[in-house]
Amino acid sequence: LGAHFTGIDRRMANLFAADGKSLILAFDHGIGGANYSGMANPEKTLTDAVAAGADAILTTVGQALRFGQIISRVGLVINLDDLVDDPTYGVTQALSVGADMGKVIAFPGSPTHVDSVHRAARLCAIAHQYSLPMMVEPIPVSFESKADHTPDKIGPAARMAAEMGGDLLKIQYTGEASTFREVMAPLFRPVIVLGGPNRGNIREVFTDVRTAIDEGAVGIAIGRNIWAHETPAKVVAAMGAIIHGGASVDEAMKELN
Amino acid sequence: LGAHFTGIDRRMANLFAADGKSLILAFDHGIGGANYSGMANPEKTLTDAVAAGADAILTTVGQALRFGQIISRVGLVINLDDLVDDPTYGVTQALSVGADMGKVIAFPGSPTHVDSVHRAARLCAIAHQYSLPMMVEPIPVSFESKADHTPDKIGPAARMAAEMGGDLLKIQYTGEASTFREVMAPLFRPVIVLGGPNRGNIREVFTDVRTAIDEGAVGIAIGRNIWAHETPAKVVAAMGAIIHGGASVDEAMKELN
Amino acid sequence: LGAHFTGIDRRMANLFAADGKSLILAFDHGIGGANYSGMANPEKTLTDAVAAGADAILTTVGQALRFGQIISRVGLVINLDDLVDDPTYGVTQALSVGADMGKVIAFPGSPTHVDSVHRAARLCAIAHQYSLPMMVEPIPVSFESKADHTPDKIGPAARMAAEMGGDLLKIQYTGEASTFREVMAPLFRPVIVLGGPNRGNIREVFTDVRTAIDEGAVGIAIGRNIWAHETPAKVVAAMGAIIHGGASVDEAMKELN
Amino acid sequence: LGAHFTGIDRRMANLFAADGKSLILAFDHGIGGANYSGMANPEKTLTDAVAAGADAILTTVGQALRFGQIISRVGLVINLDDLVDDPTYGVTQALSVGADMGKVIAFPGSPTHVDSVHRAARLCAIAHQYSLPMMVEPIPVSFESKADHTPDKIGPAARMAAEMGGDLLKIQYTGEASTFREVMAPLFRPVIVLGGPNRGNIREVFTDVRTAIDEGAVGIAIGRNIWAHETPAKVVAAMGAIIHGGASVDEAMKELN
Amino acid sequence: LGAHFTGIDRRMANLFAADGKSLILAFDHGIGGANYSGMANPEKTLTDAVAAGADAILTTVGQALRFGQIISRVGLVINLDDLVDDPTYGVTQALSVGADMGKVIAFPGSPTHVDSVHRAARLCAIAHQYSLPMMVEPIPVSFESKADHTPDKIGPAARMAAEMGGDLLKIQYTGEASTFREVMAPLFRPVIVLGGPNRGNIREVFTDVRTAIDEGAVGIAIGRNIWAHETPAKVVAAMGAIIHGGASVDEAMKELN
Repeated sequence: LGAHFTGIDRRMANLFAADGKSLILAFDHGIGGANYSGMANPEKTLTDAVAAGADAILTTVGQALRFGQIISRVGLVINLDDLVDDPTYGVTQALSVGADMGKVIAFPGSPTHVDSVHRAARLCAIAHQYSLPMMVEPIPVSFESKADHTPDKIGPAARMAAEMGGDLLKIQYTGEASTFREVMAPLFRPVIVLGGPNRGNIREVFTDVRTAIDEGAVGIAIGRNIWAHETPAKVVAAMGAIIHGGASVDEAMKELN
Repeated sequence: LGAHFTGIDRRMANLFAADGKSLILAFDHGIGGANYSGMANPEKTLTDAVAAGADAILTTVGQALRFGQIISRVGLVINLDDLVDDPTYGVTQALSVGADMGKVIAFPGSPTHVDSVHRAARLCAIAHQYSLPMMVEPIPVSFESKADHTPDKIGPAARMAAEMGGDLLKIQYTGEASTFREVMAPLFRPVIVLGGPNRGNIREVFTDVRTAIDEGAVGIAIGRNIWAHETPAKVVAAMGAIIHGGASVDEAMKELN
Repeated sequence: LGAHFTGIDRRMANLFAADGKSLILAFDHGIGGANYSGMANPEKTLTDAVAAGADAILTTVGQALRFGQIISRVGLVINLDDLVDDPTYGVTQALSVGADMGKVIAFPGSPTHVDSVHRAARLCAIAHQYSLPMMVEPIPVSFESKADHTPDKIGPAARMAAEMGGDLLKIQYTGEASTFREVMAPLFRPVIVLGGPNRGNIREVFTDVRTAIDEGAVGIAIGRNIWAHETPAKVVAAMGAIIHGGASVDEAMKELN
Repeated sequence: LGAHFTGIDRRMANLFAADGKSLILAFDHGIGGANYSGMANPEKTLTDAVAAGADAILTTVGQALRFGQIISRVGLVINLDDLVDDPTYGVTQALSVGADMGKVIAFPGSPTHVDSVHRAARLCAIAHQYSLPMMVEPIPVSFESKADHTPDKIGPAARMAAEMGGDLLKIQYTGEASTFREVMAPLFRPVIVLGGPNRGNIREVFTDVRTAIDEGAVGIAIGRNIWAHETPAKVVAAMGAIIHGGASVDEAMKELN
Repeated sequence: LGAHFTGIDRRMANLFAADGKSLILAFDHGIGGANYSGMANPEKTLTDAVAAGADAILTTVGQALRFGQIISRVGLVINLDDLVDDPTYGVTQALSVGADMGKVIAFPGSPTHVDSVHRAARLCAIAHQYSLPMMVEPIPVSFESKADHTPDKIGPAARMAAEMGGDLLKIQYTGEASTFREVMAPLFRPVIVLGGPNRGNIREVFTDVRTAIDEGAVGIAIGRNIWAHETPAKVVAAMGAIIHGGASVDEAMKELN
């Protein structure tokens, strides 16, 4: 008889282009106190990203309330990383701005945030009660603990995100096709790759995205490597060429000219 | 300082094309017990309408749960005409399938449904609590009472729908540009025109839609005149040409060939 | 020690000028299906009324959501006449648009609306739970039953409105100073006079308002006699001169030139 | 189609003069146990401030209940800094006294109040459910940690307040135009500057306010530097001349004579 | 009159074959971050296990949401080991995917998880409020503390699980018939045995299961020793022969050929 198509499915579909892939601009860094280059003019950043073909924006309720008109024709993912106590308020707030998805981070193996995985799982449970799908971002131990960002830890962390009911998995690229393929194999939810710190080498980023898509990722959620670039709109367009157009890295690089 | 852009605004935007207009296929007649020609194969009707360019579908929770995949890339309006007592359940149900808008009918002047206007107003109030915008369809007295469907009754009925907080007004075309213009003048919410019974004369329908759009309507919510036609997909495409493409009636007629 | 100054007091104060008087433009007729001359351009009507010195607007949630920016610097009274069942939704809706007061009608002696007084009392009770003050408009029997609009019926009806907890009484002028004085004497809540149908004789209206203010009324809530006039903004200014400036009827008439 | 104008927008507008600017007297220090000079006669302080032109008062529910009549014609912001667990009670209490806005502090980077940012975000979410706008006051680390009150920390802290959905940002002046300009640039919500401890040098305060307004701040929320002055009413009037009248510092100083 | 047969009883019955015994495939390890051999292809694992005769699957909400169709004809137990705060959300989430039972672990005697028993008891209480039966898995001290896994500790731990209201007890096999018999004697709830780490010796596992069933266990919940085997489907079939068919160990071994 198949499955009922509930609001979880419908809202999640809002993030994806007709080809089932999604270019998500991550622009939620300000809620964590970041002050990166490229964050200075959010209105322009959002306007340019939408014009250049972003499928969705990952941002905050503050930006949604202020710039909602600008991003009204693309998907909206709301950062719900730091909810206190009963997270219901965060879920209903996200829905009150018309969010298509919530997003939460989890740090498997963290010695300091020992319940971050369980809290993420709880948030997924409550979000689903309200038919809000969740993007889960599993980072082994912490962002700072680079030594733990190995395929054998990224993989199980991602699997945990799927097991807890995460609907879309935002994971780190492992650095090479073979290990990324191994990480992807046992995951049973769609995967997008995150960008991380601005690498200052956009060709490398394009190469990683190209490989990730080739290995089965359905898209990206990338921020700093896009809006900290000198021509963010061109980077979005180039990313779109890779993700939706099958462009090679060389072809993507030409989009920057 | 401007207004916050909340989920009411964002969800409503989901129904409209970039030009601010919307072609809504009305396909919610089954919930009322109708058995019109053209209702036999809902999967095909929905598939064809989406492929032909419908911007949104007005339907029921049942269809949304069953055919949600098919209509996942267009706007979704859920019929909430017949809620009992506390209508909160209807609003949360609509949101549980990811609806972008609810729809309710009101019969100003009805001797039998004396509180239909007040019930519609209550539903708008509760829907707004959940950031769900509402389409209100004000029909003077009743569908059967054709003698009451005059401009001097259609106008005030539509105004009532706006005053109660309706976000989108689904009204009857008055039959001629001059009276429709008068009806539109004092309305302060966007208006779409409904189709009514199958007239068996698609040129007439096109003519009415063309005139309504020219007089300021932002779209249509038409059912029987579309899916009871022998080539529904062509009618949708022709309607789209009128609404979004500025096509004349003659040009629209050519789309049917 | 005196009374606590709660939100009921504070919100009510928002309607009044520093002199304790209030010129309220009634513009909520559309919700009842009216289509009077002067209602055609609500945006202009509200803009002109505010510019000309109205202290508050009595209107609907629909207008508040649409024209809220225009009326953001004057008091806001929301029509709550026709709530269904548990009226809590109406009170919370009024507060959701930032209303300073709700308004409800009551028909003492009505043979058809036998519980209208009790429903108004219930609404006052619930509104007070939410610190929303209420304007109560007691009309003997019905608007149509002119024979019942005599001082000996207007007075007790107004007293009922005060007794049920109405915070501001919107009553009919009795037609002459002496009877109005008698009506006012036993009332223990502030009184404003309503305007009723457009009389087409603005001097008469000014005369009634002048007398009512002289006899202790704190203001007016008048609609049709203002916005159905050919120069509504001038009528508002003239009313302001009477209410706030102590102008005579002759002086007020000069404002219309 | 634009955005609905809800109670969040309307209540916030109550704080501002017609020029879109606001002079807010901060007088909520007693709730924290302060006993500063100038707090001895709250009735007089409030009366004088309102008479001298304050647009709004930031205070406590206690003062609102006791002195509500005095401040009934200016905006009311209620201090909600110290709510326990489910903050719904604080929001409904603020609304019960007719507040136009709530206010909450956040200490990004605090080692002792590690969840103060997340608690402030939660309060904003819940306040918005009730259509109450929020003033957020982001202070890097703590009031005592002066070394952290640098532009590179004030800026990101303020951005966090905007991202979490704060409607009005109460921030520290950075000490000079150039750095304040940089702090302001990426903020997407209106900013007011706070006063901090009594500096005993009112010219300096005027200079800072003049510069902040010139750089785009929409007003101030200043307490001790006003009511601890020997002639508070004159300071309020002088501040008003700067904020609303475009007065220079020299012109403002003359108001004190 | 006997006892009411409530949803607790009915749901629990869904796990058992007509003979009152149950072969449960444990496949919930991913939620804890495990990355064991055999977890790579969950879709195949579940498909094969069902085809080979598993009576139920112990897994996660994530797998249930993703692979629910595959396991729709067998019992479903949801891992609820790591709930935060009020566990109601976990119980309702399990019911939202149609679970027949929840599962929780408890560590009697743990010096680090001092409240794990009480938390398990709380979860049983809340699950029963919702008529969800609970599988309780009592492990003395910890999985790592092998020295504590003696019959005199396994027995009391299991008794605690029964006393707290556990409906099905998932316990460790003690290694020999006599001690297992002693452990079983005072338990007043049905018992299943767990498998633990992959022993690489399937005959030993069959021997333990055979003995446990002979001593009164009603089934098994075994994972790694099944799906980490080279022919998992054959192991399931062999286990079924032991549990439901009365097969000897030798007969079971023949199923692997």
